Parts: sequence; C-alpha cells; structure tokens
Amino acid sequence: MSKSSTTAAGHTLWTKVPKANTELFALTYGSLITELLRDYDQNIPEINSQLERIGHSIGIRCIDELLAKSEVNGVNIPPCRDLKDTAEVVAKIGFRMFLGIGCEVGKLTAKSFSLFLNENPLSIFVELPQNGESGDSGTDWSKLKYSNIYCGVIRGALEQVNMKVECDFVRDVLRGDDVNEIKVELKEVMVDGAGEDYHEE
Amino acid sequence: MSKSSTTAAGHTLWTKVPKANTELFALTYGSLITELLRDYDQNIPEINSQLERIGHSIGIRCIDELLAKSEVNGVNIPPCRDLKDTAEVVAKIGFRMFLGIGCEVGKLTAKSFSLFLNENPLSIFVELPQNGESGDSGTDWSKLKYSNIYCGVIRGALEQVNMKVECDFVRDVLRGDDVNEIKVELKEVMVDGAGEDYHEE
Repeated sequence: MSKSSTTAAGHTLWTKVPKANTELFALTYGSLITELLRDYDQNIPEINSQLERIGHSIGIRCIDELLAKSEVNGVNIPPCRDLKDTAEVVAKIGFRMFLGIGCEVGKLTAKSFSLFLNENPLSIFVELPQNGESGDSGTDWSKLKYSNIYCGVIRGALEQVNMKVECDFVRDVLRGDDVNEIKVELKEVMVDGAGEDYHEE
Repeated sequence: MSKSSTTAAGHTLWTKVPKANTELFALTYGSLITELLRDYDQNIPEINSQLERIGHSIGIRCIDELLAKSEVNGVNIPPCRDLKDTAEVVAKIGFRMFLGIGCEVGKLTAKSFSLFLNENPLSIFVELPQNGESGDSGTDWSKLKYSNIYCGVIRGALEQVNMKVECDFVRDVLRGDDVNEIKVELKEVMVDGAGEDYHEE
C-alpha cells in the first residue's frame, strides 16, 4: 500500500465523522484524570495503568467505528501485511479519524515501531505540577503518563484485528521531552478461525 | 440583537476551533461516568451533583475561550441585555462553538428559560440499564442525569459574566423523554465594580 493512499483514506474518514471542540474534549479528559487522582489517592503508577485500561475499552469501540465508517463511505483500508502497514494505518487513519491529527511513524523494526505526535490534543491546557510543589505530599508527577489512554486505545484496537501489542508513552512534552513518542511492541499475532486460511464452503 | 447574527457568530466560531471526533469524546465522557459510578458507589444523586461540579470548572474555561476566540477572530458577541439575549447566546454560540450543534430556546420568562437539544453528542453510544436488571443491586438508573455536566458548564460560564443560575436536566431522551431539556433559572445578577456604570478616569 502507498503512504499517500493511507493518508488520503484518513482525511476522507475525518470529513465523515461528527466533531466536537477539542478544547472541550481536553477539559473533559482532564476531569477524568482528576477523578482518577482522587480515586487512586495520587498513586501514579496505578493511575497510568487505569488510563491504559480505560483506553483499551475505548479502542475496541474505535476500531469498530473505523471499520464501519470505512465500509459505509467506501473508503479502502489497505490490508496490513506487515507491521509497517499496521503502523501507517494507526498513524494516518486512526489518529486522523479520531483526533484530526496525523502522527509520524519511526524506529520501525519487525517487532516494534514508534508513533511521534507533534501535537497532543489531550494536553492543550495542561501543565503538570513540579515535584515538590506545595500540597503535593510526595506525588511524583514526573511519572504521570498523562496521555496514557492512547496506549490503551491502540492496544484495544489492534487486539480486535488479532494483534497483541504492548504500548508505552515513552516520551512526553509535558514531562519536558522534545516530542511525544508512543512505543508499540508486537507481542503476538493471534490466530482465529476466520483468518486468511479460512474458506467458506 | 438579531437571532440570525447570533447564529452566524456561533457558526463562525465553530469554524475557528480545533476539532476531535465526537465519538471519541462521547466514549471518554462515558469513562468519566464509569469512574464516578465506581467512586461514589453508584450513589446516583451524588453522581449527578459531581457531574454538575465538574461541569462548573469546565464552564469557567469555556467562557474564557469563547470570549478570547471571539475577540481574536473579530466575532461580535452581542451584549446580553435581558435573559432572552443570554439564552440565545448560550444556545446559538455556546453549544455551537463547543459541540457543533445548535439548540433551541423555549419556555422563556423573565427569570428562566429552557434549552432543547435535539441531539446530544454525549449520549450517542449510551443505553442506560433498566431498573431491576441483574447486577444493579438497587441502583435507580432512572434518576441518573447522564449529561448533567452541561448544567454545570452553563452555570460556570454564566457565573463568569455575573449571572448566578441554577440548571437542571429536566427531560432526557435516555430516560425515555421525547426531548432533552435543560431548565435554566436566573437566581441573581451579581454586581461587580466594573459594570456598565463604571467609567474610566
């Protein structure tokens, strides 16, 4: 598949989806983070893992929407024959269709790739407290993976198409990094009864 | 002010804001509801009030964004001389700018109005459990004001422009009503030092 056809498919799907103001979305996501901070008593590793869990459920719905909307609108989602194809679909179709942004694929190997987000809609209003700021009672904010929901979404979505992956938000502009980087590692390609070898009678 | 200029201002602002897929927004809001249900042990009145509280903080940010974006883009927000003007701005500019939808104003009196939402982006994937469904252990789902965050947003936003209001999500398609209706009651117009009688030296 060509990169440009993937990009075009993403843009076409983006024109077809209902839209809301990203700022409202970001503020609502911020409220979710606040609830989790309260709920899990500022236990940052636990909050990171809860965000990933929440994202996983959302990802399962997202891939359903992506496949349904592409079928309804006659948008061709190129088959993913290798991890490079998959990475391109996630970056150029998935991120475009749900967030209106593209992201870049890099560090590609047979078993992993990274997604680089130049912009991150979730964090537009966010500035994390500095460690040691008053009232934080020892919370290590530098460990908070604020946007970890993305990792869960990607894992949930790819699981539905039989790829078991692990994702990690390894670099984050909110934590002082130059760029946002999500690392995706392929753990297993699951086999189900209706794969390529399946022939209907 | 004319109705049509308010509608036009809302549409212009909508073209200027960054956008995300409403479906992703709705799913994220659903996750917030799920967290609250867990956090407050399915205490429905408490969850309704928490949603209102969360909305209040968001509303304060929303009105700032609305005023800032209208200034930057030269969009004229008509002055609100009476509650009818205010209702029109909330319905035709506020809802349009943040959700891409308009809503209708009705039941207008000197002290109250209702907003009627024909579509509700927050609830696109939602079906509330029926009371008595297994596993609900007595939760009275018919009392859940799923979209109560709107009430808080309106209260927070209007508070910033010196209007104390109370809002209630009085009819909800999710609860079997024909339409979504938010009732807004004006409690007090607050006076601050920089109102119309203020003259700079």
